[in-house]
Amino acid sequence: MKPNRETARPASIVRYRAGQRLPDQLDEVAAEEPLEIRIEGHSIAVVMRTPGHDHELAAGFALTEGIVRASSEIFEITSCLTTEQPTGSVVDITLTDPAKFDPAKLSRHVFSSSSCGICGKATIEAAMQQFPAITAAFTIDGKILLQLPEKLAAAQETFQRTGGLHACALFETRGELRLLREDVGRHNALDKLIGHQLLANRLPLGDCILLLSGRVSFEMTQKALAAGIAIIAAISAPTSLAVDFARANNQTLIGFLRGETMNVYAGAERISR
Amino acid sequence: MKPNRETARPASIVRYRAGQRLPDQLDEVAAEEPLEIRIEGHSIAVVMRTPGHDHELAAGFALTEGIVRASSEIFEITSCLTTEQPTGSVVDITLTDPAKFDPAKLSRHVFSSSSCGICGKATIEAAMQQFPAITAAFTIDGKILLQLPEKLAAAQETFQRTGGLHACALFETRGELRLLREDVGRHNALDKLIGHQLLANRLPLGDCILLLSGRVSFEMTQKALAAGIAIIAAISAPTSLAVDFARANNQTLIGFLRGETMNVYAGAERISR
Repeated sequence: MKPNRETARPASIVRYRAGQRLPDQLDEVAAEEPLEIRIEGHSIAVVMRTPGHDHELAAGFALTEGIVRASSEIFEITSCLTTEQPTGSVVDITLTDPAKFDPAKLSRHVFSSSSCGICGKATIEAAMQQFPAITAAFTIDGKILLQLPEKLAAAQETFQRTGGLHACALFETRGELRLLREDVGRHNALDKLIGHQLLANRLPLGDCILLLSGRVSFEMTQKALAAGIAIIAAISAPTSLAVDFARANNQTLIGFLRGETMNVYAGAERISR
Repeated sequence: MKPNRETARPASIVRYRAGQRLPDQLDEVAAEEPLEIRIEGHSIAVVMRTPGHDHELAAGFALTEGIVRASSEIFEITSCLTTEQPTGSVVDITLTDPAKFDPAKLSRHVFSSSSCGICGKATIEAAMQQFPAITAAFTIDGKILLQLPEKLAAAQETFQRTGGLHACALFETRGELRLLREDVGRHNALDKLIGHQLLANRLPLGDCILLLSGRVSFEMTQKALAAGIAIIAAISAPTSLAVDFARANNQTLIGFLRGETMNVYAGAERISR
């Protein structure tokens, strides 16, 4: 993939090595900037994100928060561009049927779906009412899964320069990389990826494997479910609520996918030998 | 440190090694559960956190969001405990002077301070108005910094079992560990640490080094500033906005603190040879 200038910023740093202060040098850091997401002109969220793919981020956020269900519900996505903010800092989504959108209802909704209930059980039940559980019953070859981390690392160019980005990647069940997105926020990376597929009319993603560069929290499994993703694999660990949620929604959840090993926390029946 | 039963949960998993499916086994995953934080009975946030140190988390959140400035402003912190939720899932803070608290003002405030402005500059300016910049002018020995990651790893017991927690640690300027907190959320780990010090009447923390197990985003530097922390060091990378914020507020920001090397992104004058 070609370098994206917006995802990294230059920073002059002082480097110490073995007690020695080296001459000042120029390094790169992962870009982080606020983006305000509006629906029909109403501000619904401000996210700290890495600039780039902002329309996909807004579209993915709207889907994973349950505001839209299909790209046909989105009429247009526009950015406010100014001289001061050439990367854009406000994105507005207009809907095909604006009458369906009630901002007063939404503020409660966003609150409740991102981290709602009073106990884990209530959280899962609320989310289950929002998005249907996975019904896909295919299997994939375990050997293909073991090859994915290397493919992710090869494609993750900004991380290699800055060490500061989370990555999400979609793979076909035969192991081909379909799409990669990076962001300082793991939720944003996933929303960008899902937003891209939403706008390309490729949802639900029941025939894909989602690979995450880091850990898997409850919110990541919930966003994956919103996109219909059956198989979630991660380089690092899942949380307890992510495991509970994946089991309750018939998702396959794989952690510590490294070298020749992986741990399967839910849905092991989708993995063939 | 003694194991905390609440920070990890058992999970039965299927492990694959070199293409072989091993017998089912019991593993541990980092606990994640929602906690509702209330001020004077008004719900102000629901955070997905690792149970444990919930009062410190609520106190730290109240401080870093600018709701309280000192422990004397907190009258009492109580948990709602039930048979179903023995770890507690709602924490309520009552204030010494409840009349000062305006929940209508707060909801806007929390929104605006966690990720507010329209551009990075506006974000930084808004935050600078909220918390004073660091004025401490001491120096620390660079060699002491290099020893901290090993001390953190030795103290981080839940991470070693689950691989799933972020850690924050406070060190004295001579390198002694003062306090460690772990959580599935990096913001929560820092709020717990700051909350502990707030309740122990030890703010501001101008004489400490904060060490983070992961990356440094804007919000982490902002929370550190709320506690008066002058030196932030991290095992991994900072974001562009974290660098800008640290520079604007006279904080020292160190990244990639590993082995014999570190990168100093801001405030290098506090590090002596």
